Amino acid sequence: MNSMYEVIMDLPLFQGVSRDKVSELIEKTRFHFLKYKEGEVIAEAGDLCQHIRFIISGSVRLEFSSINKSVTLSEVLYSPNVIGADYLFGRDTIYPFTAYSASDCGILQIEKSDYIRILQSDKVFLFNLLNTLSRNSQKSVQGILALSTGSLAERLAFFIVSLTQRGGKEIKLAYVQKDLCTLLGVQRSSLISTLTSLKVSGTIEFTQSEILVKDRELMFEILHSPED
Amino acid sequence: MNSMYEVIMDLPLFQGVSRDKVSELIEKTRFHFLKYKEGEVIAEAGDLCQHIRFIISGSVRLEFSSINKSVTLSEVLYSPNVIGADYLFGRDTIYPFTAYSASDCGILQIEKSDYIRILQSDKVFLFNLLNTLSRNSQKSVQGILALSTGSLAERLAFFIVSLTQRGGKEIKLAYVQKDLCTLLGVQRSSLISTLTSLKVSGTIEFTQSEILVKDRELMFEILHSPED
Repeated sequence: MNSMYEVIMDLPLFQGVSRDKVSELIEKTRFHFLKYKEGEVIAEAGDLCQHIRFIISGSVRLEFSSINKSVTLSEVLYSPNVIGADYLFGRDTIYPFTAYSASDCGILQIEKSDYIRILQSDKVFLFNLLNTLSRNSQKSVQGILALSTGSLAERLAFFIVSLTQRGGKEIKLAYVQKDLCTLLGVQRSSLISTLTSLKVSGTIEFTQSEILVKDRELMFEILHSPED
Repeated sequence: MNSMYEVIMDLPLFQGVSRDKVSELIEKTRFHFLKYKEGEVIAEAGDLCQHIRFIISGSVRLEFSSINKSVTLSEVLYSPNVIGADYLFGRDTIYPFTAYSASDCGILQIEKSDYIRILQSDKVFLFNLLNTLSRNSQKSVQGILALSTGSLAERLAFFIVSLTQRGGKEIKLAYVQKDLCTLLGVQRSSLISTLTSLKVSGTIEFTQSEILVKDRELMFEILHSPED
């Protein structure tokens, strides 16, 4: 039972509450523990978000597709983490990304109605969610206000940072080169030249169809922006 | 007393509750009613956000400055509306904009601690805030996924839409031309040519130092994005 406590107290939205409160939670809430094999889909882009889902072991890749589908940005989240807390409420409660297990992983799933009861049961749970949502909502404004040069490197960094989250690892932009050029509004030669200089500075690796971001922090430095 | 009820039940975060609940609210909460003359500052960029502030009469202009300060984007919000609900929680609870009265206006101000009590007193109040925050948080991802051409018009529309909100009127981008060119990463000739074609299509008016957006919806059309 001890490990159950620890698992729960470690989760982003359940931090900071007393052991007693967690006991109560364990007693009163229907927790669904699910196992996924590497590569299995956990939630698909367009699915209704009706559960809050936590990664309690292993890792999950979130993949966003741009409007033309030939540019996708993805990142890996490791346990303990939460998947798409921003999509439980709002006008469109659908996932904008596909989430699939990046390794064998364990997911703790709680129904929205149960999670709402949790939010109402203790201020700390409520604040955790309000802080998370507010932070995400503020992020885009801060990112835009940090734009300064309009350079291709800056635009690329903005795109990557905006679609990924703090702690996101193994960030990968997969693309058809001509479509990435269109999306960014540049010629192929400018793209290659910018990617080459980002590679030289140790920020990314790239091939003809993929950019690997070495560290999300380095993207922030391009934006001259404080971490989100 | 009747008008007090109506004022409160009309406010974005107080909608959908019963008259009884509003009575209770009026009884238990310290409401501060403030009056501002046209042009007076209500909150300054960098100020700590320790109150929730509602516009109950008149209008308020929110003004964002870019990192180099010579490009500012502003919009006018009319009553009934809320100012900066996204900045009460999160890591940085400071206003990113300066808010000043665009006409003589009335503000209803509630202390954060009182507002938290309100959130806990009824699920409807809580859902109103969770929906608002989630919607704002989702907005940037939707905007970015809607980008498709990398054109200057699209980048300009993205900048404007991301920093303004649904219902924002009289949207104005004031700039030193050379600094706007730098921010957007374009030559002066491209800027003028894009602005001219946006003017011809009836989307904006512009001078050497100012763009007036005729309708925020038209900016969305440039983004090929659903309304937020």
